[in-house]
Amino acid sequence: MAYILSVFAVRNLLVLSLALNVSLILRVLLLHDSQDGSFNGFFFAEQKEEALATKITRLSSSVAPSPSLPIAQGDEDRVINLDHGDPTMYESYWQKKGDETTVVIPGWQFMSYFSDATRLCWFLEPEFAKQIVRLHKVVGNAVTENRHIVVGTGSTQLFQAALYALSPCAEAEPISVVSAAPYYSSYPLITDCLKSRLYKWAGDARSFSKNGPYIELVTSPNNPDGFARRSVVNGSEGILIHDLAYYWPQYTPISSPANYDLMLFTVSKSTGHAGMRIGWALVKDEDVARKMTKYIEINTIGVSKDSQVRAAKVLKVISDNSEGPNEGDSFFEFSYRVMAKRWKQLREAVQQSGLFSVSDFPPQLCMFLNRVFEPQPAFAWIKCEGDIEDCESFLRGKKILTRGGKHFGVSPKYVRISMLDRDKNYETFVRRLSTIRS
Amino acid sequence: MAYILSVFAVRNLLVLSLALNVSLILRVLLLHDSQDGSFNGFFFAEQKEEALATKITRLSSSVAPSPSLPIAQGDEDRVINLDHGDPTMYESYWQKKGDETTVVIPGWQFMSYFSDATRLCWFLEPEFAKQIVRLHKVVGNAVTENRHIVVGTGSTQLFQAALYALSPCAEAEPISVVSAAPYYSSYPLITDCLKSRLYKWAGDARSFSKNGPYIELVTSPNNPDGFARRSVVNGSEGILIHDLAYYWPQYTPISSPANYDLMLFTVSKSTGHAGMRIGWALVKDEDVARKMTKYIEINTIGVSKDSQVRAAKVLKVISDNSEGPNEGDSFFEFSYRVMAKRWKQLREAVQQSGLFSVSDFPPQLCMFLNRVFEPQPAFAWIKCEGDIEDCESFLRGKKILTRGGKHFGVSPKYVRISMLDRDKNYETFVRRLSTIRS
Repeated sequence: MAYILSVFAVRNLLVLSLALNVSLILRVLLLHDSQDGSFNGFFFAEQKEEALATKITRLSSSVAPSPSLPIAQGDEDRVINLDHGDPTMYESYWQKKGDETTVVIPGWQFMSYFSDATRLCWFLEPEFAKQIVRLHKVVGNAVTENRHIVVGTGSTQLFQAALYALSPCAEAEPISVVSAAPYYSSYPLITDCLKSRLYKWAGDARSFSKNGPYIELVTSPNNPDGFARRSVVNGSEGILIHDLAYYWPQYTPISSPANYDLMLFTVSKSTGHAGMRIGWALVKDEDVARKMTKYIEINTIGVSKDSQVRAAKVLKVISDNSEGPNEGDSFFEFSYRVMAKRWKQLREAVQQSGLFSVSDFPPQLCMFLNRVFEPQPAFAWIKCEGDIEDCESFLRGKKILTRGGKHFGVSPKYVRISMLDRDKNYETFVRRLSTIRS
Repeated sequence: MAYILSVFAVRNLLVLSLALNVSLILRVLLLHDSQDGSFNGFFFAEQKEEALATKITRLSSSVAPSPSLPIAQGDEDRVINLDHGDPTMYESYWQKKGDETTVVIPGWQFMSYFSDATRLCWFLEPEFAKQIVRLHKVVGNAVTENRHIVVGTGSTQLFQAALYALSPCAEAEPISVVSAAPYYSSYPLITDCLKSRLYKWAGDARSFSKNGPYIELVTSPNNPDGFARRSVVNGSEGILIHDLAYYWPQYTPISSPANYDLMLFTVSKSTGHAGMRIGWALVKDEDVARKMTKYIEINTIGVSKDSQVRAAKVLKVISDNSEGPNEGDSFFEFSYRVMAKRWKQLREAVQQSGLFSVSDFPPQLCMFLNRVFEPQPAFAWIKCEGDIEDCESFLRGKKILTRGGKHFGVSPKYVRISMLDRDKNYETFVRRLSTIRS
């Protein structure tokens, strides 16, 4: 004990912690400055590389404000990039929470490949596993009993692990992978990335009628359109993957705990920590969980321990605050209120403009928030009305970057817009949208 | 500033830091206890799942000491698992360094998917990039000028990113991927995992004679046998990937900075932080670097920021200490000495037993340590002499778990043994090896 005390001498630690904090704070302030403009990096852009390169060049050379020029009054000339769902909206909540979710990791910690060699998923940090189970219990959005937990580098890696685990090995032909349109734009890209002989993208689940086994991806609430989903293919040999990234009370009423064979979750959309690259799967079948673990072992030999430790801390604070005496200030209360306000603003802007439409959602009772409300999805799925055929191009002309319907398997009259950007960007966006006349 | 001070109130931070440290220290002590026996988790085991399951069951039910039983005097009955290269040897150095490499990450930090949207590799933390360049300059083991850095979830992910980037899209047939035997046992498994139509494993590079393009993996120093390597295929259309995971001064003399088109490195073997899952590639061709970035974007939407931040800190401390006044206590001096001692012990044990042999390596001048020495690889590549045909089984009978030659494309008379385990395990291993007579 004397040794431990001498190593972590109180004064040294305090000086170190403060120095680190100051440098981190400065860094974030700098980052805020540099990112409040527009991104010219993209991910999951389904365009061909060439088109992408052109887009990036155009953005950085002409449309985006040069860093050396002052930004115009009222942000009228600024490009608003709502193409990808970067959840930076949540930064302000965690900033307000201060050091409640700070983690301290000494250099000699978490060095091994192994987190718990006795577990099926040997690279899953036990504390993270514990906090996953606890949060699902607190929120009531998923059954965790008799489930294996597999951690992944985001739910994207877990989706691939699931494809690997669920594909029959002995088949001569790749198994078909389908999802009802509009489907998450990355599904086709991920599925066909390496031209696997195990599985292949087969498009819209609604028009799929092939005999034999298939994998159906059910995203609920759905990305991009926010609707609750069930499987749609009427085959007897379907295997389902439920992507429940958005089944959290800030986005949709939690009506009952989801109880499917294979469910995917991610911190990116639940807590807003996209930079951690942490997701988890709840898996009923032991053999499937084992094969998913094997895929992640082959793909990346496990998942960052540091991010798992940090994610465990964040989940713990969310559970603590949801159950504690100040639950009005809890994470889900905060984020529910922000989403409610943003959806109200969006609907007003759409009405003022008259050129667009957005869906209405049926209100439902949320068992967690104990209140009836309409879903307020993480993305807005907007339709250009009238003769605007290419909504993405039309909005790009207004310096609003979105993702067009064709990437989601539907008409270019639709676009998907992230609702999770920082306040400043979101405010500029709705203000600009409301004034668009033609 | 008042805001920042109130959030990070000195007293709160100190209490928090101490609480965290105590819990982390306790956790590590517990982990040490639980892991000093034997692992029954495996990674990169090339056996079939069934065989693996049997092995695990056998281990946990009969060979491994039950946690409730006292460990026999002198550790004689304990299973020593040196199958995988878990670099836990390095823990003691970083523990001794105390809080020099401690990182503190507030909950509202590194939330975005993006690290620097203006970079080609937009998920690479700028500080990590800076420290990579600096460390290579300090050690002199790789040219970083005119190179793009791509960060990966370990070098395993970067290897796959390289295959994706280097495979010709338009070919009807998958490109052949080869490496001279004995080759890293995971190469075939990773390459053929998803049965890609882009590339396929084609075995030992020495017997490869197909016309047309191919990818040759050159691991230098080589895993498993520790020898310096050059490409061996005599084709005109070869594309090379240099895996330089072990090209660090604790393992081999640094004769000159490596200067290849595509070089892979990882913290797992350089600093011992396998749990971070952080690797980096130095890539000459911009288009290749861009495609590698695209693969990682599709595969995991980037790489854990938390681990990148931590890795940056560790690399910085190594560079600082290597250049500072106490360079005798630097990381590479420490790890060079441990490896030198272990290799001396191993050679003595091999001689005492009389049943095994290990290669000699030619000594060379290390420009970094400014000293002539023989390579002292991270793995020992041991041959069973005489009539022992299956060295892995033979040693398993002595409760030493190793990886047999057939996994590396050569005779089962060879085994690979990790030289990077904790002191206690390594000492038990060499003691036991020295007494094996038949």
